[in-house]
Amino acid sequence: MFEKRPRTVGLLGGGVIGGGWAARFILNGVSVRLHDPAPGAVEKVQQQISNARRAYRRLTRLPLPPEGVLSVVDSVADAVRDVELVQESAPERLELKRQLLAAASRAAAPETLICSSTSGLRPSLLQVEMDRPERFLVAHPFNPVYLLPLVELCAGQRTPPDALTRAAEIYRGLGMHPLVVRKEVDGFIANRLQEAMWREAMWLVNDDLATLQEVDDAVRYSFGLRRAITGPFSIAGGGGGMRRFMEQWGGTLKCPWSKLTDVPELTNALLDKLAEQADARGEKLASLEFEQKRDDCYVAILQGLRTQGQGAGKTLALWEHGLRDHNVQIDSGSGPLRMPPVQMPSDWLDSNGHVNESRYLQLCSEATGILERYVGVDSEYRSKCGAFYTVETHLFHLGELRAGDCAQVLTQVLGAQDKRLHVFHVVIREHDDKPVAMAEQMLIHVDATRRRSAPVRAVVRERLLELAERHAKLPRPERVGASIRQR
Amino acid sequence: MFEKRPRTVGLLGGGVIGGGWAARFILNGVSVRLHDPAPGAVEKVQQQISNARRAYRRLTRLPLPPEGVLSVVDSVADAVRDVELVQESAPERLELKRQLLAAASRAAAPETLICSSTSGLRPSLLQVEMDRPERFLVAHPFNPVYLLPLVELCAGQRTPPDALTRAAEIYRGLGMHPLVVRKEVDGFIANRLQEAMWREAMWLVNDDLATLQEVDDAVRYSFGLRRAITGPFSIAGGGGGMRRFMEQWGGTLKCPWSKLTDVPELTNALLDKLAEQADARGEKLASLEFEQKRDDCYVAILQGLRTQGQGAGKTLALWEHGLRDHNVQIDSGSGPLRMPPVQMPSDWLDSNGHVNESRYLQLCSEATGILERYVGVDSEYRSKCGAFYTVETHLFHLGELRAGDCAQVLTQVLGAQDKRLHVFHVVIREHDDKPVAMAEQMLIHVDATRRRSAPVRAVVRERLLELAERHAKLPRPERVGASIRQR
Repeated sequence: MFEKRPRTVGLLGGGVIGGGWAARFILNGVSVRLHDPAPGAVEKVQQQISNARRAYRRLTRLPLPPEGVLSVVDSVADAVRDVELVQESAPERLELKRQLLAAASRAAAPETLICSSTSGLRPSLLQVEMDRPERFLVAHPFNPVYLLPLVELCAGQRTPPDALTRAAEIYRGLGMHPLVVRKEVDGFIANRLQEAMWREAMWLVNDDLATLQEVDDAVRYSFGLRRAITGPFSIAGGGGGMRRFMEQWGGTLKCPWSKLTDVPELTNALLDKLAEQADARGEKLASLEFEQKRDDCYVAILQGLRTQGQGAGKTLALWEHGLRDHNVQIDSGSGPLRMPPVQMPSDWLDSNGHVNESRYLQLCSEATGILERYVGVDSEYRSKCGAFYTVETHLFHLGELRAGDCAQVLTQVLGAQDKRLHVFHVVIREHDDKPVAMAEQMLIHVDATRRRSAPVRAVVRERLLELAERHAKLPRPERVGASIRQR
Repeated sequence: MFEKRPRTVGLLGGGVIGGGWAARFILNGVSVRLHDPAPGAVEKVQQQISNARRAYRRLTRLPLPPEGVLSVVDSVADAVRDVELVQESAPERLELKRQLLAAASRAAAPETLICSSTSGLRPSLLQVEMDRPERFLVAHPFNPVYLLPLVELCAGQRTPPDALTRAAEIYRGLGMHPLVVRKEVDGFIANRLQEAMWREAMWLVNDDLATLQEVDDAVRYSFGLRRAITGPFSIAGGGGGMRRFMEQWGGTLKCPWSKLTDVPELTNALLDKLAEQADARGEKLASLEFEQKRDDCYVAILQGLRTQGQGAGKTLALWEHGLRDHNVQIDSGSGPLRMPPVQMPSDWLDSNGHVNESRYLQLCSEATGILERYVGVDSEYRSKCGAFYTVETHLFHLGELRAGDCAQVLTQVLGAQDKRLHVFHVVIREHDDKPVAMAEQMLIHVDATRRRSAPVRAVVRERLLELAERHAKLPRPERVGASIRQR
């Protein structure tokens, strides 16, 4: 997956969207050449990168690739020269975007893809003044760009399909979900849907049927929970499928329950009401605290969906799969097995900010799992032959891990007999190689069908004995065979 | 909280919504008298209760109160007699509901609250033929009723405010989020919003701008994730608050990006297209498998939001707080401390379906936390004086726990000195009292500011010594001081 990541991209515009792109690219190991003439733009971009670092630490336990480099440049030409992709995220003004894209197209190499983040402008209108308009498309993301996976890809009249294919591969490599829009249409897909609901929400507030907070509550405590799993075509239940559902509910579209024909006039009175009700929530909307709270919620939902392999959780799992490919080498020759580094997520912490004691055992348990696969206990062996079950653990705590720390487990096989496996794990903190915990474990091999202890099968025994022999040459850890000493 | 739960409720209608109500009531310890003349209704209701049992086992680790009893009765009068609340969930036909509610009002005791689950009919139209219409209101839930927390409460012209207050307390006690709708309006709040988006989605499919699946993907990979956290008035970011946001985006309401003026004609061709695209997803929408997958996703999102204390996660935490009040007694006199039972959630399992070894240590770690609070190490002591840190654990596995099993930890203090605390935990499986794991632990008391081992303060020492003295009379566990034996 990572071969498809560009090395360097050029970003035009560093606002909320451009800064979010900078964060997603840089944390995925892609260097960024950023041009934004607005004062303070660079600081805001750096804040977003720092927000994203914090969010990713919570999002995944896998270590990220080395960060890309952010270079701030003084001109459009400097931003787009020698890059593989240009992402334009300027304000939503057609003339401004047209000029920027035309300038970018003249300075960029002929094969450089040029994408616009526009929320609603048609690509055919944007590409008219470009050199080689056939490498231009819309790639519309959602804020925060570093967390929300959707990117809508839309071709203009002069964009051939292969430009979309190339762009989709790049965005997929960044952990995004590219969705190709079939026809050019204002607002593409998601924003049209979002706007329809937003208009009805404006009416509810305008007519004093609900406050802004009540509208939000009505959504997030009910079908809003559904929207993370499925879109508006979810069928609530009851059987009979879509046709039955339409018979039952299609009529309400005509009733109609919602306002159809009008847009509420954006009078000063309505704007005042909205602003007042928004203020009443007491959230400092642009504050760092608010942004971090928002990100934490996204992280929690994404992690939840990952456990189910659904929607954006599936996208996250795919991205992690790409990250994992970097870390397959565990055999360090004559030393103990060196397990892939693991980053401490926020939900592993105690109230004192340290990783909970049970998570050290979880790390060791995962290390045993990797050791098992290394000697041939794969899913087929598990279902047909058996697996190792822990009967006893002696765990020693020597130090602490905190959120974002990376840890590695070093695993030594102390002994392997017919039915028993004796191992020793050392958990080290990656940045200073300090051991923070150690565990001696005794496991027995359990037969898959009889569910009782049974000798290891030959194919696994051979690899295991070979490993045990190699590890027998390592120094025996002092704490092996210890008992808890009482005074 | 639980005092406000009714003992028995009457349900009229056992379809998708009525069955969901039955599940929420029964699992919260409320008995249900159900009337539904439709063939097969009872089996469907029982299926929903069984789905809810499965979902709740995953949703919370706290044990639920003893289940209420489901009685199926032959008439409206039998369903509503001697109950504290009647919940009507009949099909959405005004005349049918009017008659049902009128009959219910004649048979029910005068103080019984009568609520309708209608998705959109105005309460004033429903209450006209009732006896004592002042105890009637709309209480509109969302499917699946046992998982989605919103219930919209709407008064008719003849409903006084205190009826809404009484109803809100009951629903809150069931773990729901009651939202009072300020004025009578067709479709209340949530369905008006949902319908607006749905209409635009129909247009997108009708005009071949997107397939049904693409519409769903556009939502769930983007702002759909936001809807579980906040409703349509979330401000995407960029600072400046609501007024700035409206300046920037209000114009798009007028562009407009979405279709305004029409409803797509529900022609056979459109219905065919929708049905075909829905079938193409290959989901058996009314199947048990589909419902369980859906429930698992809700559970994952709710648990994620609970870690953040946001929206529906906050409602869940409140409900759990009510459940926890049942389980404060840990001191069993002369025996070891008996910790509150904990139910094994699905995300604690290994691929073989057993609880992962590290979770046994987590149970012991939580037991130590409860022991600490019992002897006075509360949050104030922690911040000013210190706390106990585990230095060593010897963990023994004797059996297995699976999802849904309840476990309890029995904790014995083996010794307490100035700085050291020596404890022994036995994890027992609740249904057969079998020990499945044991752990010997040594902890040291660490000073809050110097972050080094330090003697326990007097206030805690006293309670600790008293407990140690009592527990010294218990038999000393055989495994204390053991070491891992090698062959």
